[in-house]
Amino acid sequence: MRMSKFYIPTLREMPSDAEIASHKLLLRAGMMRKLVSGVYSYLPMGYRVIRKVEQIVREEMDRAGAQELLMSAIQPKEIWEASGRWENFGPEMFRLKDRNSREFCLGPTHEEYFTDLIKDEVKSYKQLPLNLYQIQTKYRDEKRPRFGLMRCREFIMKDAYSFDVDEENMKTSYQIMWEAYDEVFTRLKLKYKVVQGDTGAMGGKISHEFMAMSEAGESLVAYCDNCNYAATDEKADVVYKVNNEIEEELNMERVHTPNVTTIESLVEFFGIDHGRFGKALVYNIGEPIVAIIPGDRELNETKLCNYLGIGEHDLELANEEIILDITGANKGFTGPVGIKKGVKVLVDSRIAKMKNLIVGGNETDYHLKNVNYGRDFTGEVVEDLLLVREGDICPKCGEQLKMERGIEVGNIFQLGTKYSSALDSNFLDENGKEKPFVMGCYGIGVSRSVAAVVEQYHDENGIIWPLVVAPYHVIITVVNTKDESQVNLGEKLYQELGVLGVEVIIDDRNERAGVKFKDRDLIGIPIRITVGKKAGESIVEYSVRGEEDKQEVEVDKLISLIEEEFTKEGLKL
Amino acid sequence: MRMSKFYIPTLREMPSDAEIASHKLLLRAGMMRKLVSGVYSYLPMGYRVIRKVEQIVREEMDRAGAQELLMSAIQPKEIWEASGRWENFGPEMFRLKDRNSREFCLGPTHEEYFTDLIKDEVKSYKQLPLNLYQIQTKYRDEKRPRFGLMRCREFIMKDAYSFDVDEENMKTSYQIMWEAYDEVFTRLKLKYKVVQGDTGAMGGKISHEFMAMSEAGESLVAYCDNCNYAATDEKADVVYKVNNEIEEELNMERVHTPNVTTIESLVEFFGIDHGRFGKALVYNIGEPIVAIIPGDRELNETKLCNYLGIGEHDLELANEEIILDITGANKGFTGPVGIKKGVKVLVDSRIAKMKNLIVGGNETDYHLKNVNYGRDFTGEVVEDLLLVREGDICPKCGEQLKMERGIEVGNIFQLGTKYSSALDSNFLDENGKEKPFVMGCYGIGVSRSVAAVVEQYHDENGIIWPLVVAPYHVIITVVNTKDESQVNLGEKLYQELGVLGVEVIIDDRNERAGVKFKDRDLIGIPIRITVGKKAGESIVEYSVRGEEDKQEVEVDKLISLIEEEFTKEGLKL
Repeated sequence: MRMSKFYIPTLREMPSDAEIASHKLLLRAGMMRKLVSGVYSYLPMGYRVIRKVEQIVREEMDRAGAQELLMSAIQPKEIWEASGRWENFGPEMFRLKDRNSREFCLGPTHEEYFTDLIKDEVKSYKQLPLNLYQIQTKYRDEKRPRFGLMRCREFIMKDAYSFDVDEENMKTSYQIMWEAYDEVFTRLKLKYKVVQGDTGAMGGKISHEFMAMSEAGESLVAYCDNCNYAATDEKADVVYKVNNEIEEELNMERVHTPNVTTIESLVEFFGIDHGRFGKALVYNIGEPIVAIIPGDRELNETKLCNYLGIGEHDLELANEEIILDITGANKGFTGPVGIKKGVKVLVDSRIAKMKNLIVGGNETDYHLKNVNYGRDFTGEVVEDLLLVREGDICPKCGEQLKMERGIEVGNIFQLGTKYSSALDSNFLDENGKEKPFVMGCYGIGVSRSVAAVVEQYHDENGIIWPLVVAPYHVIITVVNTKDESQVNLGEKLYQELGVLGVEVIIDDRNERAGVKFKDRDLIGIPIRITVGKKAGESIVEYSVRGEEDKQEVEVDKLISLIEEEFTKEGLKL
Repeated sequence: MRMSKFYIPTLREMPSDAEIASHKLLLRAGMMRKLVSGVYSYLPMGYRVIRKVEQIVREEMDRAGAQELLMSAIQPKEIWEASGRWENFGPEMFRLKDRNSREFCLGPTHEEYFTDLIKDEVKSYKQLPLNLYQIQTKYRDEKRPRFGLMRCREFIMKDAYSFDVDEENMKTSYQIMWEAYDEVFTRLKLKYKVVQGDTGAMGGKISHEFMAMSEAGESLVAYCDNCNYAATDEKADVVYKVNNEIEEELNMERVHTPNVTTIESLVEFFGIDHGRFGKALVYNIGEPIVAIIPGDRELNETKLCNYLGIGEHDLELANEEIILDITGANKGFTGPVGIKKGVKVLVDSRIAKMKNLIVGGNETDYHLKNVNYGRDFTGEVVEDLLLVREGDICPKCGEQLKMERGIEVGNIFQLGTKYSSALDSNFLDENGKEKPFVMGCYGIGVSRSVAAVVEQYHDENGIIWPLVVAPYHVIITVVNTKDESQVNLGEKLYQELGVLGVEVIIDDRNERAGVKFKDRDLIGIPIRITVGKKAGESIVEYSVRGEEDKQEVEVDKLISLIEEEFTKEGLKL
């Protein structure tokens, strides 16, 4: 391809609303453009990368025995009502009506549809296992679309669905997909961790997320360097040691605490440790609920929603009016003792074990001291409502956990029979008995993976594409397009490399050398050939994007240098 | 691929709502499934065909210098309002709102978006010509989705947009695309005609349609065997000879014609030729209008809409109430003389030339005789409001036109500056003057092309895929999977052909031979190897789908037979 003809609208200025590297660089390198918030188009250079990622995903899915198909994005309300997700998905689902007022959504995912597809068509256990996948545009009306390709409202995803006769076989399918994902992300050169995830809106019990580690990631991962434990902050079990379990229960006291409404000010006021307080959080989920957790910790809203069986969009912090109504006090003085009758109180299991707590008094400017679960208040005890943090004890080995940010590029779910039961999608087993399919589902964010690659491979000047997903392998820069020998040599190399199957782009624009070098760095083609003043002697400059080394070489050495680079990256020329 | 593992849910029964061969066979062969009216999923076998067609389109677009990218399907209302098509597209456009009540459509096409994309990014004439394309899912909420992939509400399309400095260069881009389309449809083995088309909702003046000729097509093509004239029935100019132009104008007479309301009954009543009558059609386009055409012809509603500058969805036949209001008579007695004041009367130019017409009297049970344009009535004279029919005179050479049905698989439009002017999308010309881009747009129905191939290539037993788009090149049928020598030979051939890069599927199912043969015919893989009783002697049966010949051959002759078939189809093994 010739840059003089190719549509690569690079930008010198920093796009104003872009915060992270991949967002900035993909815009600046002319690889994508925003249409509206969270909706992008992939320009020719960027789309080449997308298609390479798709192809890697496709090859690994095929190798794992999954079969590619393509479903519609439009899906009728009925199948989503059967699973209960028409309501559950909330405002994140794009909804529309056709000319006959029939209701549809734009698929945010396809569990219902796949389950419905094979219903009545796959009849026998003999046809299982079956794994079907598609690479398709998905739609989610995100509350806060941001970070370019990281969180979009229209995006490209690979989604696969496995169907098995029982749990054990489903676990085998799950394992096969896990391994295929390892292959995909390894081929994409991503540094990633596989971590336990929350199953969220998908349902099922077990899931794992593939996290490309990056400061720009929206996910937080808790992991242990000692054992292989790793989980998202939403999922990670929190081990919290209660130190005063054996203390004697003292008499409850009412303490005047004017304007002392935060844990910090309580610590100062009482002169004791954060952990001795019971923190009350009031939420509105249609009705008010109160959650009590240790004063030195944060509440994990995902765990709370899972316990309540609601979606996160149905959870909001209660306003002061509700708090006043159920506590009789202003905000900051809520506690579990004497809360309005009928209000559900959820108690983190550690609170239930702690002795002589200090909690809000449900009376403005008052707290209660020496409060004890069972004696002074009760509630529904929930095993774990806490958000993990750096330094927590590893639930697996007891060492300390570390925290790091990651980009969720893949996820795999053991769904079980949630969808097949709901949609009445069954097969006949060996004994002729009807059973629901046992399912798994498996996603890879194709467009998001491109963002993840850029986050991990860039410098201050631009992108540094790994060869395997680079839009082109080699860029030839003709320094001075008015110098005939440079033009001729550039053209000759361009033709020769093309014939060898190298994907090569030539910068034949009538631009200053500085512009060409800046664009070259920005766009990030890995292998660079600079045809300059020594063109007449058949000498060019060879360099690799992201490496310091530059070497002057005779042109007949180029092939072997390029070959070397391919080999280094595990590719064949 | 092994058929025992592959998801090909073939059907023995004829799907009840399928009328045409491609619809029936693609369903029966397990290549696609309907979700709701006009919305399909492509199953693994069918999706392989889709992807092959896509790849052919991609290769020819790339070869023609077009650059692939991918835009979003979601598009904001604003850019469609700028072009005036938000209203104009009518109910055929799927519309939706996001969580912030912002209005969007699902792109039925992308003229506005591409024009908007390059605005401010392509600044100079030096960057032109530019041709950008995508292969993408499109959405049209068709009034009558039908015929399977022929008329869908969600479908796969290739759309390209060219940008040039002036008309002349745009015509060059148009010509290049025309030639690329010829390549595409030739490679797809489609028997097609290129015909003049109506520009319809796209705008512009000149367009051509690529019609795959088939009885199942929804389009009617008028063509001349003598010259190369061909046009859709919507577009074709009608040459209509007026025979009595030189007659003397007689006195107008009022004739009592009780219950004589159709042209047929008028012909009988008056005992003269159809062509002496003036047929009046009353439409409601928000206001009533009357069109007068020769009594022996049909009105072309596309021509009428184009003249009026309205969309076809804004045109409907007037009800009896409106007719009564503007004529004072019941339906069947409408004519141009004495119609209610202010009602627009459109007169086909031939009517204006005809002498002594018989027309409705605008009085129940009465007609008028010897009516003459100019003397007895006036109106807006429209050059041509007539629908072409078999036997009409070719407007180019004067021979007789023939009519045939076709499937519109591609179309190309000379748009001019309709969109660039509306969206203020300009470049600077050689003299530094701002000018709007001169555009063309070019579509190929990818999924519809698959249907067209099936319409042209099938028999009563199933599909007969041309090798170039066949889901697999070769099918090996192991007749008896309990016969070890058959299984072994089948497997050996399966492996050997796979290594050679032949796309091969083996029917290794434990099914009766009859079932396998039926499925094989239905699915339509072109090259067939039957491994039967003579497997022990390394003899198999070789045949080609759709040909009578079967031959018993030694297995070592297979490669050269397959190679021969590839060569015959213009492919390389």
